[in-house]
Amino acid sequence: MSTHNQTKGNIPTAPEETPFGLFLWGGKEKFDRRKAILEAFINNPIFSKKTVTTPSLARKDAWTRAALQSRELIRLKLKHEWPHRQFMEAIRLTDNMLPVQPQFRIFMSNLERQMSDEQKAIWIPKAERFEIFGSYSQTELGHGSNVRGIETTATFDQGTDEFIIKSPTISSTKYWIGATGIWATHSIVVARLIIDGKEYGNHLFLTQLRNLDTQELMPGVEIYEMGPKVFQGMLGTDNGALRFHDVRVPRAQMLARNAQVLRDGTYVAPKNTKHSYGSMVTVRALMAEITGWDLLKAVTVAYHYTTFRRQFDRDHRGAETPVFDYASVRYRLMPLLAQASALVLVGQNIKRAYDTYTEKYLQTNDTSELEDLHLQTVGAKVYSTEITGHGIETCRISCGGHGYNALSGFGRMYANAINAVTYEGDNYVVAQQVPRAILKHFKAKTESSLSSLSYLSFLRTKEPPKMIEVQTSSDWLERDKQRFVLEQRLVLLVQNHMEDTKSKKDTSFSTHALTMAHGDFVYWKGLWNVIDQNENEDFHPSLTALAQVFSLSILQNAHLALTPPLSLTQQARNLLAEAYRNAINDLADNHVAKIIDAYGFTEYELDSALARADETPYEALLNGAKKSEMNNMQHLWPMMVDTRRIWREIEQEKQRGRQAKL
Amino acid sequence: MSTHNQTKGNIPTAPEETPFGLFLWGGKEKFDRRKAILEAFINNPIFSKKTVTTPSLARKDAWTRAALQSRELIRLKLKHEWPHRQFMEAIRLTDNMLPVQPQFRIFMSNLERQMSDEQKAIWIPKAERFEIFGSYSQTELGHGSNVRGIETTATFDQGTDEFIIKSPTISSTKYWIGATGIWATHSIVVARLIIDGKEYGNHLFLTQLRNLDTQELMPGVEIYEMGPKVFQGMLGTDNGALRFHDVRVPRAQMLARNAQVLRDGTYVAPKNTKHSYGSMVTVRALMAEITGWDLLKAVTVAYHYTTFRRQFDRDHRGAETPVFDYASVRYRLMPLLAQASALVLVGQNIKRAYDTYTEKYLQTNDTSELEDLHLQTVGAKVYSTEITGHGIETCRISCGGHGYNALSGFGRMYANAINAVTYEGDNYVVAQQVPRAILKHFKAKTESSLSSLSYLSFLRTKEPPKMIEVQTSSDWLERDKQRFVLEQRLVLLVQNHMEDTKSKKDTSFSTHALTMAHGDFVYWKGLWNVIDQNENEDFHPSLTALAQVFSLSILQNAHLALTPPLSLTQQARNLLAEAYRNAINDLADNHVAKIIDAYGFTEYELDSALARADETPYEALLNGAKKSEMNNMQHLWPMMVDTRRIWREIEQEKQRGRQAKL
Repeated sequence: MSTHNQTKGNIPTAPEETPFGLFLWGGKEKFDRRKAILEAFINNPIFSKKTVTTPSLARKDAWTRAALQSRELIRLKLKHEWPHRQFMEAIRLTDNMLPVQPQFRIFMSNLERQMSDEQKAIWIPKAERFEIFGSYSQTELGHGSNVRGIETTATFDQGTDEFIIKSPTISSTKYWIGATGIWATHSIVVARLIIDGKEYGNHLFLTQLRNLDTQELMPGVEIYEMGPKVFQGMLGTDNGALRFHDVRVPRAQMLARNAQVLRDGTYVAPKNTKHSYGSMVTVRALMAEITGWDLLKAVTVAYHYTTFRRQFDRDHRGAETPVFDYASVRYRLMPLLAQASALVLVGQNIKRAYDTYTEKYLQTNDTSELEDLHLQTVGAKVYSTEITGHGIETCRISCGGHGYNALSGFGRMYANAINAVTYEGDNYVVAQQVPRAILKHFKAKTESSLSSLSYLSFLRTKEPPKMIEVQTSSDWLERDKQRFVLEQRLVLLVQNHMEDTKSKKDTSFSTHALTMAHGDFVYWKGLWNVIDQNENEDFHPSLTALAQVFSLSILQNAHLALTPPLSLTQQARNLLAEAYRNAINDLADNHVAKIIDAYGFTEYELDSALARADETPYEALLNGAKKSEMNNMQHLWPMMVDTRRIWREIEQEKQRGRQAKL
Repeated sequence: MSTHNQTKGNIPTAPEETPFGLFLWGGKEKFDRRKAILEAFINNPIFSKKTVTTPSLARKDAWTRAALQSRELIRLKLKHEWPHRQFMEAIRLTDNMLPVQPQFRIFMSNLERQMSDEQKAIWIPKAERFEIFGSYSQTELGHGSNVRGIETTATFDQGTDEFIIKSPTISSTKYWIGATGIWATHSIVVARLIIDGKEYGNHLFLTQLRNLDTQELMPGVEIYEMGPKVFQGMLGTDNGALRFHDVRVPRAQMLARNAQVLRDGTYVAPKNTKHSYGSMVTVRALMAEITGWDLLKAVTVAYHYTTFRRQFDRDHRGAETPVFDYASVRYRLMPLLAQASALVLVGQNIKRAYDTYTEKYLQTNDTSELEDLHLQTVGAKVYSTEITGHGIETCRISCGGHGYNALSGFGRMYANAINAVTYEGDNYVVAQQVPRAILKHFKAKTESSLSSLSYLSFLRTKEPPKMIEVQTSSDWLERDKQRFVLEQRLVLLVQNHMEDTKSKKDTSFSTHALTMAHGDFVYWKGLWNVIDQNENEDFHPSLTALAQVFSLSILQNAHLALTPPLSLTQQARNLLAEAYRNAINDLADNHVAKIIDAYGFTEYELDSALARADETPYEALLNGAKKSEMNNMQHLWPMMVDTRRIWREIEQEKQRGRQAKL
């Protein structure tokens, strides 16, 4: 029986500070930033969500709104001197992926990490005060994840001391370039450097695309706005298709922190080559922290709605049962709440590790930890985006028919989340990097340097692992039992992978499952770590309830990979199913209300007719219908009336035809 | 190595008749109807797809287009006397769910099955010639699948010989009512009949909503267009939210084939009560046949694109490898091609069985087969909509980043397919009817009457089943091996279900998996049946290749449910994996091109930039970008230029502030 029966008035309009909430949000600093942004937004009509039904708009009108929001955000940031991080968090709160999004997320982070100090002195201030609008042009029509296939060239012209940027083919068209269809004035263009006919691989070129005073395209630059995305995704982004026809870029605008080209055309090679995947690591580290929040919002909306809605009188009490109390809803939402929480809590640690690394790198150029960080962020990227994307859709579907109503907000959430499984590296392509790293460590016998590879030791011994014994369902709550299943699954998957690799089988499909299994283990360890560190907090029991649902939900699948003699018996399976059922019901009956309250998403953040402060879901849906712009289609009424008379005309026509024949 | 390397020119513009194609399409009659519709559409600008980028439109403009297409379709149908079926198929070809869709799909089919002969004589001609526009009002804000919870009432007023229709609460608002936000003039309203204060349950009332000559709402009728759907789904449908304030309906307009109300208020009960789920069975029988086609189109687009696109030089041949040749793509697309084909081929048989039943019912009122048909169509509905919805999204994602471009068409396909998992009965709710029927037959010992329940016999014996032996991978191609795994899984699932039911556990989640497992078995049997009947055809080897991929793909999951001593050994699993790999590669290397050609979807039907007759995918994407309406946003340029100057104003302001303080 759920204790958190949602009626009108239960959704907060402003963040409320509690110890549990501060912990989940990752500390007071972040919590306060969020509070400040929400205050600024809620009283500013430009950011109002309730007055506009975005999914009904023409795309160009939705984009116009995003451009105006960008303008207002720039004003707010400059006026109140918001830190970049707060600015980026504000963009996320609009749910709109504004054209100003790349400015810090990828444009300036690249300037900072890839420019020489002289270059930075010129360009960073311009970018910081939005004197220029930036973007990052890497992907081409013909090549995405395969960066080595990039065809755009930058040929050094010693005579003029410039590079000449060129798009030699249709497939070399820069494509999907965010904020570049209409907005950006400058872009960091990834192109193959050519000097005196010799190729030096991909380098970055700060290229001006548009006139600062008129917004007109610069000579030789051909740009189209790319067209709509599926599901009305990323409505606020003007993605560009860019072609370069001998566009000239001064030599001083090749990003020169690492490699350089001298005045006489001499190429100075970079001292270390690891920096090249730095920019992807940046974005993926951000993604690791961010994605879980998207799933949490979807879970929160679904929770509010399913505790409100009632169907059938299951328990013969003379009243209908809240649909949240059915297993069909609990088994879908509770694992997602646990998984989303794991993504957030473990993801925050990955982001912290990345921030520490970056700070050190900018001071000392030390890249020794980049490889492990790369492995961590790639794994987290694949794992978190798969769970979040599909999880949001599961939340929507668990709400039944009304989840298909765009006023529910689920459409926007899914559209803006699911693209992450193919962008910043297609998950099936980048997932291959995890097994590659596992095998590398195994061959080099360096697996003990990473605790996430503990299971590899089983591959070194000939002894069969000691089978666990499970007598009661609560045995499944023990960590060594859980660890056994997760590790042994990985042992089998890695073993299969090694054999397949040896016999030259194509493993591009199977590695995805291996990477997800590795992710299960990494997040399982990481989540329990976080929880153990908070043993004395009042909210520790709720965290433990979450962690048990997380653990048992991944075990449901994990054990299936085990083969005789390790296969679970029917009895062990039944006990696992019982443990899982108990954990789900414990979370749903005793903790979920506290957890949802602690996250405390506001009405503004959820932006869903199913979760309003002052209306029930049914009231909000009906009021939404009353506001539909399609209630004013009177100009089409005569057409419909006339259509119902077509049969007469046609009958008369046929009659005339028959008479004519006579 | 794929043999079907897609370049421009390979997508047909008109259907081509081949023996294999005729077989797959279900015969010449259907094939010819499709051909006739395509001919009518391709030369009629109102139905042009290439000139309009629907996902960029405002919703009201997209709907306006759908309304105009409806008008034109009505004209075409009346002029050329198209059969109803052809008219419905034409609607599907617009990909737009037109407001005229309910006219035959649910409005007239109800008039036919639920009206008395006198009533039919009046109303059927009006509906057939579109003198009235019809819809079906069942779902309410508060109740969907749970039809018994419907709150709308129809109270008999003997004085005026009318029913008074009333919406007593907000939750009784009729909601999601297709074609009723703007379009429909008449709706079949489901309401609880009340005579003299006594309730008689739900009955159907033909209710006029709008004035035929003006389109204005009738007295007491309050209607709003409901607002947008997620993912831009069903753009062509104006869903209505309806409230009735003492709306009067003549007694003669209660649908009276079964129950009747006499002039004096006497209630004449229906002779049989099975008719009540007849209308759902109709729609689900249609769905069983239809859904697979949607998945096939998505697979076809993904196939064309992945055979065109190349990435990495996997085999060191000095040329990039078509992405279709990677396991990561093949393992996603080939099972979906096989599953979609199974849905179509088995679904056609379900639809045929339903048509036979209906014909008989209309002559003899015989409903003896309705219960089994109900079970079949419920199972098929759940099974086919789950596979199709999620399968389309898998096709999109397997195309990588460009799948997220709306010009790919995948967004439209998913949006219009995935709603089926919650409409016409939420899959998690209606899935429960399948185990219920299984248990009923088991208890009544009538399982032998249905071949799809053969596995229940194992539950009657105490003897353990004889374990299969697998020595080579090709052993897994044998039907008895496949059957063993599928049947034993069902035995275990049904056993668990019985125990859970006995101990009063909530099985609303677990029954979904059981229903899907039952579906696997039913479609596995059905598919091999179809194939065995075509042993002598030239295309038999291609059908067999499809069936093996279908069988082995479902076996990949099915065997995981088996527990010791039935659990597959590591070796048996490896052989199964090998058999599956071989089957996928056989299909991909030797048959897929023939099969895709035989289905022969035209450019018009696919409506995707990734599958054009006269452009490569890259050309079509670039040309699509050139046509983007957002290339003409010059009116916003000055705003952007000005935004880049905000920093100066703010600096000046701050300076003035500092000076004022001095």
